[in-house]
Amino acid sequence: MLKATLTHQTYFDGNVQSIAFERHGRRATAGVIAPGEYHFETEAPERMIVVSGELEAKIGEGWRTYPNGTSFEVPGKSAFDVRAKDPVAYLCEYL
Amino acid sequence: MLKATLTHQTYFDGNVQSIAFERHGRRATAGVIAPGEYHFETEAPERMIVVSGELEAKIGEGWRTYPNGTSFEVPGKSAFDVRAKDPVAYLCEYL
Repeated sequence: MLKATLTHQTYFDGNVQSIAFERHGRRATAGVIAPGEYHFETEAPERMIVVSGELEAKIGEGWRTYPNGTSFEVPGKSAFDVRAKDPVAYLCEYL
Repeated sequence: MLKATLTHQTYFDGNVQSIAFERHGRRATAGVIAPGEYHFETEAPERMIVVSGELEAKIGEGWRTYPNGTSFEVPGKSAFDVRAKDPVAYLCEYL
Protein backbone atom coordinates (compact mmCIF):
# COMPACT_ATOMS: atom_id res chain seq x y z
CA MET A 1 0.00 0.00 0.00
CA LEU A 2 1.32 3.40 -0.95
CA LYS A 3 1.26 6.04 1.74
CA ALA A 4 1.51 9.37 0.00
CA THR A 5 1.28 11.63 3.01
CA LEU A 6 4.39 13.63 3.82
CA THR A 7 4.73 15.07 7.31
CA HIS A 8 6.80 18.09 8.24
CA GLN A 9 8.52 17.77 11.62
CA THR A 10 10.35 20.51 13.49
CA TYR A 11 12.60 20.20 16.55
CA PHE A 12 14.79 22.48 18.66
CA ASP A 13 12.99 25.71 17.71
CA GLY A 14 13.19 24.90 14.02
CA ASN A 15 16.93 24.15 14.04
CA VAL A 16 16.28 20.57 13.02
CA GLN A 17 13.52 19.98 10.50
CA SER A 18 12.54 16.95 8.47
CA ILE A 19 9.97 15.54 6.06
CA ALA A 20 8.71 12.09 7.06
CA PHE A 21 7.59 9.51 4.51
CA GLU A 22 6.92 5.81 4.22
CA ARG A 23 7.86 3.45 1.38
CA HIS A 24 7.06 -0.24 1.25
CA GLY A 25 6.08 -0.02 4.90
CA ARG A 26 9.47 1.41 5.96
CA ARG A 27 9.52 4.81 7.60
CA ALA A 28 12.21 7.40 6.87
CA THR A 29 12.80 11.13 7.03
CA ALA A 30 14.81 13.57 4.93
CA GLY A 31 15.97 16.53 6.98
CA VAL A 32 18.41 19.28 7.75
CA ILE A 33 20.34 20.11 10.93
CA ALA A 34 21.28 23.76 11.46
CA PRO A 35 24.61 24.57 13.16
CA GLY A 36 24.54 23.55 16.82
CA GLU A 37 24.49 20.53 19.11
CA TYR A 38 21.40 18.40 19.70
CA HIS A 39 20.38 15.43 21.81
CA PHE A 40 17.98 12.85 20.38
CA GLU A 41 16.24 9.89 21.91
CA THR A 42 15.26 6.93 19.75
CA GLU A 43 12.25 4.68 19.79
CA ALA A 44 13.03 2.39 16.85
CA PRO A 45 16.64 1.70 15.84
CA GLU A 46 17.68 4.08 13.09
CA ARG A 47 20.31 4.68 10.43
CA MET A 48 21.45 8.26 9.84
CA ILE A 49 22.96 8.87 6.41
CA VAL A 50 24.72 12.17 5.75
CA VAL A 51 23.71 13.42 2.29
CA SER A 52 25.24 16.92 2.39
CA GLY A 53 27.86 18.41 4.70
CA GLU A 54 29.58 16.83 7.69
CA LEU A 55 28.00 15.71 10.95
CA GLU A 56 29.62 14.81 14.24
CA ALA A 57 27.83 12.21 16.35
CA LYS A 58 28.28 10.66 19.77
CA ILE A 59 26.63 7.27 20.22
CA GLY A 60 27.77 5.99 23.57
CA GLU A 61 31.29 7.34 24.21
CA GLY A 62 33.22 9.79 22.09
CA TRP A 63 32.51 12.00 19.12
CA ARG A 64 33.10 10.76 15.58
CA THR A 65 32.93 12.66 12.32
CA TYR A 66 30.61 11.51 9.54
CA PRO A 67 31.29 13.19 6.20
CA ASN A 68 28.84 13.29 3.31
CA GLY A 69 28.13 9.76 2.07
CA THR A 70 28.75 8.03 5.41
CA SER A 71 26.22 6.74 7.92
CA PHE A 72 25.83 5.45 11.44
CA GLU A 73 23.24 3.35 13.23
CA VAL A 74 21.68 3.99 16.61
CA PRO A 75 19.98 1.31 18.74
CA GLY A 76 16.30 1.66 19.63
CA LYS A 77 15.29 2.97 23.04
CA SER A 78 18.58 4.81 23.35
CA ALA A 79 19.97 8.30 22.76
CA PHE A 80 22.63 10.06 20.76
CA ASP A 81 24.06 13.52 20.24
CA VAL A 82 24.91 15.27 17.01
CA ARG A 83 26.63 18.52 16.26
CA ALA A 84 27.12 20.49 13.08
CA LYS A 85 29.36 23.48 12.32
CA ASP A 86 27.44 24.17 9.12
CA PRO A 87 24.02 22.93 7.98
CA VAL A 88 23.90 19.19 7.29
CA ALA A 89 21.31 17.32 5.24
CA TYR A 90 20.54 13.75 6.23
CA LEU A 91 18.34 10.78 5.51
CA CYS A 92 17.12 8.87 8.58
CA GLU A 93 15.88 5.32 8.03
CA TYR A 94 13.97 3.55 10.78
CA LEU A 95 15.16 -0.05 10.97
CA MET B 1 28.89 33.82 7.32
CA LEU B 2 26.76 31.01 8.65
CA LYS B 3 23.09 31.12 7.84
CA ALA B 4 21.35 28.89 10.34
CA THR B 5 17.79 29.47 9.25
CA LEU B 6 16.02 26.47 7.78
CA THR B 7 12.92 27.09 5.69
CA HIS B 8 10.13 24.61 5.13
CA GLN B 9 8.68 24.72 1.61
CA THR B 10 5.58 22.94 0.38
CA TYR B 11 4.36 22.48 -3.20
CA PHE B 12 1.51 20.68 -4.98
CA ASP B 13 -0.81 20.55 -1.97
CA GLY B 14 1.94 19.13 0.26
CA ASN B 15 2.92 16.35 -2.14
CA VAL B 16 6.39 17.82 -2.55
CA GLN B 17 8.00 19.27 0.58
CA SER B 18 11.51 20.40 1.31
CA ILE B 19 13.77 22.05 3.87
CA ALA B 20 15.93 24.82 2.42
CA PHE B 21 19.36 25.66 3.81
CA GLU B 22 22.49 27.53 2.85
CA ARG B 23 26.12 26.46 3.39
CA HIS B 24 29.14 28.49 2.39
CA GLY B 25 26.86 30.73 0.37
CA ARG B 26 25.43 27.83 -1.66
CA ARG B 27 21.70 27.17 -1.45
CA ALA B 28 20.26 23.66 -1.33
CA THR B 29 17.15 21.80 -0.23
CA ALA B 30 16.52 18.35 1.19
CA GLY B 31 13.05 17.11 0.31
CA VAL B 32 10.60 14.36 -0.46
CA ILE B 33 8.35 13.79 -3.48
CA ALA B 34 5.13 11.83 -2.87
CA PRO B 35 3.86 9.49 -5.61
CA GLY B 36 2.65 11.48 -8.61
CA GLU B 37 3.86 13.59 -11.50
CA TYR B 38 4.99 17.20 -11.10
CA HIS B 39 6.16 20.04 -13.31
CA PHE B 40 8.85 22.41 -12.01
CA GLU B 41 10.27 25.61 -13.39
CA THR B 42 13.81 26.66 -12.51
CA GLU B 43 15.34 30.01 -11.81
CA ALA B 44 18.94 29.02 -11.07
CA PRO B 45 20.43 25.89 -12.64
CA GLU B 46 20.11 22.98 -10.23
CA ARG B 47 21.36 19.48 -9.53
CA MET B 48 18.85 16.94 -8.24
CA ILE B 49 20.41 14.03 -6.35
CA VAL B 50 18.21 11.04 -5.48
CA VAL B 51 19.01 9.95 -1.92
CA SER B 52 16.22 7.40 -1.36
CA GLY B 53 13.98 5.63 -3.86
CA GLU B 54 13.78 6.07 -7.62
CA LEU B 55 12.74 9.13 -9.58
CA GLU B 56 11.82 9.53 -13.23
CA ALA B 57 12.61 12.87 -14.82
CA LYS B 58 12.02 14.50 -18.19
CA ILE B 59 14.41 17.35 -19.00
CA GLY B 60 13.74 18.29 -22.58
CA GLU B 61 12.63 15.14 -24.44
CA GLY B 62 11.96 11.72 -22.97
CA TRP B 63 11.72 10.24 -19.53
CA ARG B 64 14.78 8.76 -17.81
CA THR B 65 14.99 6.81 -14.57
CA TYR B 66 17.25 8.02 -11.76
CA PRO B 67 17.79 5.43 -9.02
CA ASN B 68 19.07 6.20 -5.54
CA GLY B 69 22.59 7.62 -5.72
CA THR B 70 22.24 9.15 -9.18
CA SER B 71 21.65 12.77 -10.13
CA PHE B 72 20.72 15.05 -12.98
CA GLU B 73 21.20 18.74 -13.72
CA VAL B 74 18.64 21.18 -15.04
CA PRO B 75 19.49 24.49 -16.74
CA GLY B 76 18.35 27.76 -15.20
CA LYS B 77 15.25 29.52 -16.55
CA SER B 78 13.88 26.24 -17.82
CA ALA B 79 11.48 23.52 -16.72
CA PHE B 80 11.41 19.81 -16.03
CA ASP B 81 8.99 17.09 -15.00
CA VAL B 82 9.43 14.38 -12.42
CA ARG B 83 7.31 11.41 -11.49
CA ALA B 84 7.52 8.93 -8.65
CA LYS B 85 5.70 5.64 -8.09
CA ASP B 86 6.72 5.61 -4.43
CA PRO B 87 8.03 8.44 -2.24
CA VAL B 88 11.49 9.68 -3.22
CA ALA B 89 13.91 11.68 -1.07
CA TYR B 90 16.22 14.08 -2.84
CA LEU B 91 18.87 16.74 -2.36
CA CYS B 92 18.61 19.74 -4.67
CA GLU B 93 21.72 21.90 -5.07
CA TYR B 94 21.46 25.29 -6.74
CA LEU B 95 24.42 25.76 -9.05
